[in-house]
Amino acid sequence: MTTPVTACILIIGNEILSGRTQDINLNHIATTLGEWGIAVREARVIPDVAQVIIDAIKSTRSQFDYIFTTGGIGPTHDDITAECVARAFDVDLIQDQTIAERIQQRPAPEEIMESRLLMARVPKGATLIDNPTGGPQGFVMHNVYVMAGIPRIMQGMLSTLAGQLKTGPVVKSRSIRAYLGESEISKTLGAIQAQFLELDIGSYPFAHEQRYGTTLVIRGIDQAAIESAAQAIMAAVSAAGQTPEDLGPGQ
Amino acid sequence: MTTPVTACILIIGNEILSGRTQDINLNHIATTLGEWGIAVREARVIPDVAQVIIDAIKSTRSQFDYIFTTGGIGPTHDDITAECVARAFDVDLIQDQTIAERIQQRPAPEEIMESRLLMARVPKGATLIDNPTGGPQGFVMHNVYVMAGIPRIMQGMLSTLAGQLKTGPVVKSRSIRAYLGESEISKTLGAIQAQFLELDIGSYPFAHEQRYGTTLVIRGIDQAAIESAAQAIMAAVSAAGQTPEDLGPGQ
Repeated sequence: MTTPVTACILIIGNEILSGRTQDINLNHIATTLGEWGIAVREARVIPDVAQVIIDAIKSTRSQFDYIFTTGGIGPTHDDITAECVARAFDVDLIQDQTIAERIQQRPAPEEIMESRLLMARVPKGATLIDNPTGGPQGFVMHNVYVMAGIPRIMQGMLSTLAGQLKTGPVVKSRSIRAYLGESEISKTLGAIQAQFLELDIGSYPFAHEQRYGTTLVIRGIDQAAIESAAQAIMAAVSAAGQTPEDLGPGQ
Repeated sequence: MTTPVTACILIIGNEILSGRTQDINLNHIATTLGEWGIAVREARVIPDVAQVIIDAIKSTRSQFDYIFTTGGIGPTHDDITAECVARAFDVDLIQDQTIAERIQQRPAPEEIMESRLLMARVPKGATLIDNPTGGPQGFVMHNVYVMAGIPRIMQGMLSTLAGQLKTGPVVKSRSIRAYLGESEISKTLGAIQAQFLELDIGSYPFAHEQRYGTTLVIRGIDQAAIESAAQAIMAAVSAAGQTPEDLGPGQ
């Protein structure tokens, strides 16, 4: 129950690294997995280059309980994720009949169908991740979960995994806003962090309606410890001459 | 001139991995460096954990010409980037007098000043990255460029590096919009990619005002090759029965 379950996210796509596309998948996956009790510990954004993708899968998959990938499972020449996962696991790339049947439900001229069926390729031994948007499914190979890059489709695929994954304790959070510079509270905050080693206390400066301040975020599993740390932080803000604003959980 | 200059970005911060904060720094850095002629080839989002940060610096800095980090250089206990860079290079962490003087220009009670001066810590041998917002500077250690995590401050620091870095050829891009599914053009597109191996042709499906389509993005150094590939793609879209929309460069 208290053993953390961890994940690494591999965002695959030249368009993120060129700056053409602002990634929003990491944020959605991190938030969703966090609510389920899976802690995202790392993310990598990597290009559509086979050896880089293969190496990233090989080097991360033993370090984390789960690897989630986004991108590169469409029907064009730059969609090489399925092939790379197969190569990382040293298995053949095969056509999955369930995906192929779904693709074939929508008729198309032969040449277009042939292209579309490229989306039915999975590594031998993979199981499927359903795609509620109706398109081709994603797949799972051991602990590697391969999803689409288009946010709406990825979100649909991820939602089907609810309740299907091994989870650990859910990390809860509590935020307190203080109209203080970080330096005005950093010493006390360090002492509070040292007192609550099981918690993770973060300090995030902000500018809000022309006022500068710091949001203090407490994260951890133990609700009672979070409450105690929150009280200590609010007392510290008051002692520094400002009124703390309790933003409550989940901010 | 044609040797690419490469970079890896390390986004340091629990708040990105927890989903609390949507990162926008990668996109800005990738776009800016791209315009200068530096290709971002990888990005990693890593937590405020010393050994993870140290390992990430050590393992990436020999693979890329430049490493840019964001986050973890404030005055609180979770700001450990400077210390980690010092440890990665096996040098002492010292107080930089130039940063200290800037911090001391703004008076504060002794205890607060002591906290603020934590932002003057740099690895021995580091040089500075100016901070046009007036706050403490960032620093450079060999090929590792350490910047703030707050987007406005990071953007200011990065802007001061214009013209200071080794650069390679600038990658240009050209985009064509087609109201076609990817499968309707993927075969031809693959053939065009095979013909222009020096270019990188990407295919990105979209939904726009209830119409589905694909944006085809050509990226490369050789403007004449980009133009030829663009003509070939537009001809392919026309052959598939749709009117190509030339979005021009830089999309």
